[in-house]
Amino acid sequence: MSLAYSILLLLISSTSTSYFISFAHSKIARLGISSKMLKNAPDGSTQKIDESDLKMYYFNQTLDHFTFTPKSYMTFQQRYAINSSHWGGAKANAPILAFLGEESSLDSDLSGIGFLRDNGPHLKALLVYIEHRYYGKTMPFGSAEEALKNASTLGYLNAAQALADYAAILLHVKEKYSTKHSPIIVIGGSYGGMLAAWFRLKYPHIALGALASSAPLLYFEDTRPKIGYYYIVTKVFKETSERCYTRIRKSWKEIDRVAVKPNGLSILSKTFKTCAPLNGSFNIKDFLDTIYAEAVQYNRGPTYWVANVCNAINANTPNRKDTLLDRIFAGVVALIGNRTCYDTNMFSQPTNNHIAWRWQSCSEIVIPVGYDKQDTMFPTAPFNMTSYIDGCESYYGVPPRPHWITTYFGIQDVKLILRRFGSNIIFSNGLSDPYSVGGVLEDISDTVVAITTNGSHCQDISLKNKEDPQWLVMQREKEIKVIDSWISTYQNDLRDLNMSI
Amino acid sequence: MSLAYSILLLLISSTSTSYFISFAHSKIARLGISSKMLKNAPDGSTQKIDESDLKMYYFNQTLDHFTFTPKSYMTFQQRYAINSSHWGGAKANAPILAFLGEESSLDSDLSGIGFLRDNGPHLKALLVYIEHRYYGKTMPFGSAEEALKNASTLGYLNAAQALADYAAILLHVKEKYSTKHSPIIVIGGSYGGMLAAWFRLKYPHIALGALASSAPLLYFEDTRPKIGYYYIVTKVFKETSERCYTRIRKSWKEIDRVAVKPNGLSILSKTFKTCAPLNGSFNIKDFLDTIYAEAVQYNRGPTYWVANVCNAINANTPNRKDTLLDRIFAGVVALIGNRTCYDTNMFSQPTNNHIAWRWQSCSEIVIPVGYDKQDTMFPTAPFNMTSYIDGCESYYGVPPRPHWITTYFGIQDVKLILRRFGSNIIFSNGLSDPYSVGGVLEDISDTVVAITTNGSHCQDISLKNKEDPQWLVMQREKEIKVIDSWISTYQNDLRDLNMSI
Repeated sequence: MSLAYSILLLLISSTSTSYFISFAHSKIARLGISSKMLKNAPDGSTQKIDESDLKMYYFNQTLDHFTFTPKSYMTFQQRYAINSSHWGGAKANAPILAFLGEESSLDSDLSGIGFLRDNGPHLKALLVYIEHRYYGKTMPFGSAEEALKNASTLGYLNAAQALADYAAILLHVKEKYSTKHSPIIVIGGSYGGMLAAWFRLKYPHIALGALASSAPLLYFEDTRPKIGYYYIVTKVFKETSERCYTRIRKSWKEIDRVAVKPNGLSILSKTFKTCAPLNGSFNIKDFLDTIYAEAVQYNRGPTYWVANVCNAINANTPNRKDTLLDRIFAGVVALIGNRTCYDTNMFSQPTNNHIAWRWQSCSEIVIPVGYDKQDTMFPTAPFNMTSYIDGCESYYGVPPRPHWITTYFGIQDVKLILRRFGSNIIFSNGLSDPYSVGGVLEDISDTVVAITTNGSHCQDISLKNKEDPQWLVMQREKEIKVIDSWISTYQNDLRDLNMSI
Repeated sequence: MSLAYSILLLLISSTSTSYFISFAHSKIARLGISSKMLKNAPDGSTQKIDESDLKMYYFNQTLDHFTFTPKSYMTFQQRYAINSSHWGGAKANAPILAFLGEESSLDSDLSGIGFLRDNGPHLKALLVYIEHRYYGKTMPFGSAEEALKNASTLGYLNAAQALADYAAILLHVKEKYSTKHSPIIVIGGSYGGMLAAWFRLKYPHIALGALASSAPLLYFEDTRPKIGYYYIVTKVFKETSERCYTRIRKSWKEIDRVAVKPNGLSILSKTFKTCAPLNGSFNIKDFLDTIYAEAVQYNRGPTYWVANVCNAINANTPNRKDTLLDRIFAGVVALIGNRTCYDTNMFSQPTNNHIAWRWQSCSEIVIPVGYDKQDTMFPTAPFNMTSYIDGCESYYGVPPRPHWITTYFGIQDVKLILRRFGSNIIFSNGLSDPYSVGGVLEDISDTVVAITTNGSHCQDISLKNKEDPQWLVMQREKEIKVIDSWISTYQNDLRDLNMSI
């Protein structure tokens, strides 16, 4: 397996680390709302959160909403949490903010997502957080072992089923709180951001609006240039430090040069302090690729990762014998800290979340990322759909359906389609986020709007921080202002139509 | 089983007759775009249609779009037809009119539906007709016998899967004709009308607009009064002839009075010339209920069925010994013609279409129709959801999901939801159609509009006829004018956005 076969897929996983995993001929990126890979990540996981207002529930969820075979009636326990301490009540038709979980456990969302708790008091909103099927404690078939076994059980893990789960739970919550007309605003980030936008489009009778943070929902089929992701990674490095960019760009050949020496892999292993012997130079290259991408994706204060890694790479140390690869390794240390050794192949024993996401990437979330020419700071790695399909099929026994997302959700011609259909979606993107290339970056209509900043991945929905830059504070204020306007228009409509609770 | 348990469900089936069938504790109405039950029905089946321009195709369709289990990848051959003789071509982005089949065979739609062929030349449209899964020749699992066997095979027969089928075929057709931006207008009647409206809402990137003819898509759960259907049946009879209405209203007790006599059922059987001995008076009552409802539903020229049946019921014949039931029987003859005998239980050997629709009615298309008090010309027949569910469950082994349609499609609060979401839907209804009670009868926005007339069920999309009344001619003109405006707005948008083929 070589980088030439690499396929980069998005993953948003605030629990899991954000490493790549090697899988068949594909490389799957695990990219999250927040990073736990980078040391001291300012992602809320280090902040103390008061969770005493949260109550946890389980909902008896239908396994398969879209068939009526006897098997489809199987149920599982879906976890969700409610904070009702700010809620204005049913009589006031006070709003509901619902966080639609992505491919991670509810616990990590509860600690990492700030948008709901930060805005609950102002909106007098009921706060709901729902865990995505097959993640965390929401496991069909009785156990993760059974649920994640093969295509026969994993087959029920997909976006359409997840959205139907959310529909069922949100209707249940409205019934539980006896509020027929409380408007629901759904919120999600990255893959969860796609879910939020798709939910507003497919279930407008349940969600009044959606905040889709860093949702690369145009990054399917040929809608966006495959190179986009790595183009931005490269751009951010280059803008931070031309010297750093040049060093990284040169490093790949150097790695290969060392690797083919007698004992070359051992030398590399020693240079990068790997925990285990290397199978090839690709082990190191994939590892570096991941952490550079991650550094850009979560490049935010107080620690700006790209500056950090570049400072280390650029540094002139007292030790004049330092090679290029020693400097590259210094970058690794700057990013993930001093360790006794570095595990370049962390997914030899993947977590449940990784297994579940690998399935999603190999069934419908087929995001083609590749770079054919020497136009990034990385070695070439074209996206090859045939290899991708073959790899997935040989692993699972069933091929991906790479056209399904565009068939079912299909907002690829977003300007043409949504300018006169649909309403109440905010697409928020940080233009320094590599995934912004797949985002909606321009206003489509008065109510389908884009909010862009220079920020990173899912930064707007993370927890507020005293050190947040002014543009981030303003972005969040703008988002709430838009949501306020949706709600007030809706409340006027309710009065107009003489509809009460 | 008695009428008290009757549950009326809609069925649109232009092939099948429109009889009720008795099933468990339910009675399922089979109501179609056109009637073949009433004699000389002016529904196109008697008109000669030139089908030489039509080409038939089969598409390799996925069994289950919403799971990715190995079984979901099974395929079946879905039939569709294309008439390209009027098409203006890809360069002009000329439109596509797509008829979304309901629960009948494609053949009957091809002969009964006029809207496409009547408007194809003016719109320079490509005409596409698609058969619904599990009907006609579109049968998964290799054969009707296998497909219709039980819940394990029937489980894949539902509206969401059917819509995904249509999406896949329409994208395939666009590819086949190399036309990326030809706007598609979807058209359907009754259940097919619901599908058309739902398709526009769920797949706005595939269909630019929808004409939903006589689609009772609000007739779910408690959105509309359960009595609505029979209220209109009664109203039309009463307005046609008060005397006729009174006679019918009195007849049910008379039937019961005769039935309990010694040999009462034999007497009834003789009076109504039934082909087989009766199991109870309900055989006659269900039969009459059906044909009265059908007479109203398809009450149109040149034969106005309600006037016809009432003339017969009201007539003073030379035979002074005529009883009330003799007159009622004369009404039957007026409606379905002189026969050697009358089969009151025509579904003892149901057709494939009936079996498939019975499943749909017992899984998701749960339309609660009932009449509790003496407020129609029929005996009371309250809708009992518990009996309904029990009946279906004991028959299929799985219960219906009566909340699924409102969860997934949920336009019950249509004014609140669609005034600011969605566009380009025509809801057309004839107010003398009993199903209009479940229709959208008021304009919702500038582009989600209601067109109502005094017509009957699906009359606007049937074939043009020289004897069509002026209001029908005008209704169709209005529909085309609206569709024209959608297409021209869309063509402007294309130019605006500099999008070509």
